[in-house]
Amino acid sequence: MKTQQITLDHGSGGEASRELVKTVFMSRLRNDILDQMDDSAVITLFGHHLAMTTDSYVVDPIFFSGGNIGSLSIHGTVNDLSMQGAKPLFLTLGLILEEGFPLKDLEKIIDSAAEASKDAGIKIVAGDTKVVPRGNADKIFINTAGIGIIPDGIDVSSGNARPGDLVMINGDIGDHGIAILTSREGLSFKPQLESDSAALNTLVASILNISKNVHVLRDPTRGGVATALNEIAVQSGVGIQIFEADLPISKPALAASELLGLDPLYLANEGKCLIITPPEDADLILSSVKQHRHGKKARIIGKVTSDNAGKALLKTKVGGNRILAMLTGEQLPRIC
Amino acid sequence: MKTQQITLDHGSGGEASRELVKTVFMSRLRNDILDQMDDSAVITLFGHHLAMTTDSYVVDPIFFSGGNIGSLSIHGTVNDLSMQGAKPLFLTLGLILEEGFPLKDLEKIIDSAAEASKDAGIKIVAGDTKVVPRGNADKIFINTAGIGIIPDGIDVSSGNARPGDLVMINGDIGDHGIAILTSREGLSFKPQLESDSAALNTLVASILNISKNVHVLRDPTRGGVATALNEIAVQSGVGIQIFEADLPISKPALAASELLGLDPLYLANEGKCLIITPPEDADLILSSVKQHRHGKKARIIGKVTSDNAGKALLKTKVGGNRILAMLTGEQLPRIC
Repeated sequence: MKTQQITLDHGSGGEASRELVKTVFMSRLRNDILDQMDDSAVITLFGHHLAMTTDSYVVDPIFFSGGNIGSLSIHGTVNDLSMQGAKPLFLTLGLILEEGFPLKDLEKIIDSAAEASKDAGIKIVAGDTKVVPRGNADKIFINTAGIGIIPDGIDVSSGNARPGDLVMINGDIGDHGIAILTSREGLSFKPQLESDSAALNTLVASILNISKNVHVLRDPTRGGVATALNEIAVQSGVGIQIFEADLPISKPALAASELLGLDPLYLANEGKCLIITPPEDADLILSSVKQHRHGKKARIIGKVTSDNAGKALLKTKVGGNRILAMLTGEQLPRIC
Repeated sequence: MKTQQITLDHGSGGEASRELVKTVFMSRLRNDILDQMDDSAVITLFGHHLAMTTDSYVVDPIFFSGGNIGSLSIHGTVNDLSMQGAKPLFLTLGLILEEGFPLKDLEKIIDSAAEASKDAGIKIVAGDTKVVPRGNADKIFINTAGIGIIPDGIDVSSGNARPGDLVMINGDIGDHGIAILTSREGLSFKPQLESDSAALNTLVASILNISKNVHVLRDPTRGGVATALNEIAVQSGVGIQIFEADLPISKPALAASELLGLDPLYLANEGKCLIITPPEDADLILSSVKQHRHGKKARIIGKVTSDNAGKALLKTKVGGNRILAMLTGEQLPRIC
């Protein structure tokens, strides 16, 4: 039976992933911390809150327009910590290499990881390298895990959205997904879209410096903005309404999406975050985000509602309401 | 050129691994913490010391006599933290699954990981699952990363061995290596050897409860006892002399090693630790170790010397001295 095997869907970050986590992992491993089900776990040590997280990176191709698996593996984990309001401090780096992998490619990847680490102000403190025989893995897989300190008074969680809150994003959506797909398939669009892969910790720090009144931070990676909004809606028990007319998408990404039959709302991003705050702080936060190098195109894209609890809706340009389901199926395996 | 590619040697934990770490990783990623080069990094947070580590597990076969990749991935990381004298607290779990992997095997593996976590008293606080298309990975790879608290006054490090110290080990060597090899090749030895895979944190806690005067703890995994002793000798700038007559090896492991042409001193262990202490505390510690379920066959196997700095030597049963080089080459890829 098909359902008795792992499918690509199970790694999509969408509905099937959620189901696997629930039925296989949570039922066996559950504890008070794992139950939080946020981008990072929040642990308490010495009376302080820390965020802790892990992510494996299996992106194909390993070098793509705008980055490579090395920089991506730092950005992704730095961002997962940042989405908890944490200041990322220490990362570990675990490599699985395929026998025969070119040393010069490994050097390039580690160069990028080192540069990304320096740029984000974090330290890689421990590492591990395994090599498997040719054909037992595809080139290189990277795992990074990390910890960061959550400043006192910060309580950011996907469960904290409240009716009336506004939803903003720090820039164009879908660039990572399009960049990976075009790099993988050797497609050439002019201008060539670059992945938005970037560390968002300084952006988050600048927001929290202006206002501690941030309810949710979430990076819409696998499954895209639509899936992230769904998860927030479910975890917070609220509805989320976004407006198609306000969604920032670059013309090249829109054109490529249409040509390839992809919905930008489901494409992965690696340098974006959804920010949900009470309306009274939204203007201040938006103007702060816009001053950051990764937030120039920030926009308010929607609002949190008490009706339609557990659902995300898109108000289309022509005025209709479309339910944004979680991602089902997986069009783009190995997107990160 | 062969040397311009990654080879299985680079993942052996021996000489080639060391060289790769030095030339590719340390040169690019170095910082004060990574420079320590111990089983775990020691980081300072809120005025306390924490250990942090990562390991990826690619063992083949994934189910073997005495364990599976799930329990192994918990034991290995718990032990790396324990070898720093830390009390392991929180682990992350990152899975890379091959499309088509049987769900029931995944459930068995997570059951084992859950049981091992419970047994070791740690919590898995965050997880990640990636799925790659069929043929892009071999069944399942697991990464675990973890943190633990190092109690005040504990300073255990592979750089702390001092001339005059005694070297002990908590039981038979080589069982994991033999168990994996025989499981992999479908060999049947009677009695069937089981992997020694086990969490050593309670053993370490019982030692440190008796005496804080422990200089080195090290788990001889990839590369075996010989490679671990070499690393300690280099990092501490001392010689280490062990005695063949005192090495605990089970008869089945010795017989299998001889038959397969393997040296037990280079076989991986997953439930053993080398303990190096000043002689005045050795008897007390040894008797404490012997009372633990994972220490019944504990023995003093050697001593630390000021001569032969940076080398490990084996005094053979017939009275000769053999230099134990680090592992070179890799007879057993995917041993853990």
